[in-house]
Amino acid sequence: MPISNVRLAKGLATFLTHRARQAYDDPAGNIALRKSLHGYVWRSRGIICDLDQIIVINGSQQALDLCARVLVNPGDKVVLEDPCYAMARNVMIAVGATAVAVPCGDQGMDTALLPDVGEFALAYVTPSHQFPLGGVLSVGRRQALMEWARASGAYVVEDDYDGEYRYGVSPIPPLYQLGEGRVIYVGTVSKTLSPALRLGYMILPKALVGPFVHCKQFADRHTSTYEQEALASLLTTGAYERHVRRMRRANANRREVFLTAMAETFGDEIEIVGTSAGLHVVVWFNHLKAQEEDNLATRATENGVGIYPVSRLYSTATEPRAGFVFGYASMPTLSISTGVNHLGSFFRLGRN
Amino acid sequence: MPISNVRLAKGLATFLTHRARQAYDDPAGNIALRKSLHGYVWRSRGIICDLDQIIVINGSQQALDLCARVLVNPGDKVVLEDPCYAMARNVMIAVGATAVAVPCGDQGMDTALLPDVGEFALAYVTPSHQFPLGGVLSVGRRQALMEWARASGAYVVEDDYDGEYRYGVSPIPPLYQLGEGRVIYVGTVSKTLSPALRLGYMILPKALVGPFVHCKQFADRHTSTYEQEALASLLTTGAYERHVRRMRRANANRREVFLTAMAETFGDEIEIVGTSAGLHVVVWFNHLKAQEEDNLATRATENGVGIYPVSRLYSTATEPRAGFVFGYASMPTLSISTGVNHLGSFFRLGRN
Repeated sequence: MPISNVRLAKGLATFLTHRARQAYDDPAGNIALRKSLHGYVWRSRGIICDLDQIIVINGSQQALDLCARVLVNPGDKVVLEDPCYAMARNVMIAVGATAVAVPCGDQGMDTALLPDVGEFALAYVTPSHQFPLGGVLSVGRRQALMEWARASGAYVVEDDYDGEYRYGVSPIPPLYQLGEGRVIYVGTVSKTLSPALRLGYMILPKALVGPFVHCKQFADRHTSTYEQEALASLLTTGAYERHVRRMRRANANRREVFLTAMAETFGDEIEIVGTSAGLHVVVWFNHLKAQEEDNLATRATENGVGIYPVSRLYSTATEPRAGFVFGYASMPTLSISTGVNHLGSFFRLGRN
Repeated sequence: MPISNVRLAKGLATFLTHRARQAYDDPAGNIALRKSLHGYVWRSRGIICDLDQIIVINGSQQALDLCARVLVNPGDKVVLEDPCYAMARNVMIAVGATAVAVPCGDQGMDTALLPDVGEFALAYVTPSHQFPLGGVLSVGRRQALMEWARASGAYVVEDDYDGEYRYGVSPIPPLYQLGEGRVIYVGTVSKTLSPALRLGYMILPKALVGPFVHCKQFADRHTSTYEQEALASLLTTGAYERHVRRMRRANANRREVFLTAMAETFGDEIEIVGTSAGLHVVVWFNHLKAQEEDNLATRATENGVGIYPVSRLYSTATEPRAGFVFGYASMPTLSISTGVNHLGSFFRLGRN
């Protein structure tokens, strides 16, 4: 057994020695964690809310699933981004939603193309860093979206999955602040600590707290107290925010190295979008066809460079070029240039 | 910050230093944990299955929710025990199931009262220790249930929530062994480690693995790797089974002290059922009325003795006496007699 697992097992054993941990916790989340999140969302995102509006969930995926289960009935219409995070679309379709896809560009969702006002259950957006294209939703579009939502009786699900990462651009407050009880804010530690942790939180309009807590309890009683307490102690001591600052610097550095290597290797063969925030970019290859994406991505991944085809995230084929999502956050900085060079040879091979 | 939380935070920090933990894990569960569970279910419950039939979930509640989501369409009929674990009934009703309640006695579900063979999505049972009445489903009834399930095209969900705890009775193999691809086995560490952990596992018929893994991924991607690895190391080193044996002895002792104290305090005013297995019993109070249950339970809980009314777990009122679920596993052995004495005064007060 590796050393680290001894420590994990010891941590678990310590946890179990406390009698209070021999009972179910609050389905809305551990009170210590919710209190520390209450301070954190105010400091980091300017969000002011009541403590009971915050619920703890198993990462943003569970947030999306709960939204689908609580808010969407079969046949209900939902607005999604186009292209869209596949797992968001999946949970909506799974509950029988009719998806209306709204095109996104470098300023996020093009709100001029929102469907006519009507009955909609919700709109799902990633305003801090649109997934996958990386646009930041502009202030005007934020207002237009909220106006549309009010008129359509729709909730807006704001997935702030990597809102901690911004480079050389001033922070934009979350949509939640324009919300007037209409925005469901979703935060996660997947991009700051680890996606393997499965920890996130929602900030709900007051009217939705009851139904969401109920649904969360039906789904799995509550998120593990073991992890919730560990995160609470990271937040209480300030260790979490120090870690986020460190990660922000490290990822800004990785991003710089990555963009430089890409420019050197591919020059004007590529167009890169979504660089001002987040932990990934989309790279369009001007001379490669969209149909080649799957094949190239498979071969790149087999050779240790994980890239993901973009075309499949669109509701209909619109872009003739091949495009890939490049996530640079999990690459050691020193390996980035080597990885990109490696890719250069594959992609040239792909053109012959 | 208490010492224990320092250790929790350190455990988390150690976990995060490994690059492999900076990615999503397998939606079916961490491979190290599934391998160790594969050995554990064979040693502890005689279950032989393929590794890929085991999936890891967030405690048995998520297992029940996944069963409801994957197997039950609105209007489908499901068989439940009567009385029944409320959270099992809840998730079935939530997806639109029509519940058919089958009365249970001291040998578990009375299979002679199963509905006529027809189209049923599933039957939910707790054969090791019926919740709440504590009966152990007899061999004849197990066979009758499986015959009915085959004829009705129904899956049988076997919730083995406290199958580790048996006192002075020989172990009965799980229903799973009679299953022929029709039984979904649900195990949990809620009763051996802690309900606050939210860790459990399912053993699925091969044909159901794909749909369940898919649904689990939609629900929350996967169960936290952090906890899965900790449990895997407890299982691999044998620490888990040592702990279970220790718990079994400790709980046998608690049970003895509890039953003695109850007999001394209440004599023939009570009838206790479900004592041969598990971590709780149901106590019927011969001179108290079912209508008084809620009031008495509230007052007992306010005074530090957690008991739960039984009547609400029945589909229709059948028992005129007041009955309560007494869980003794979380009480310190030394406090049990005091607690029971305490209760004696309340309940006598209740009668006046």
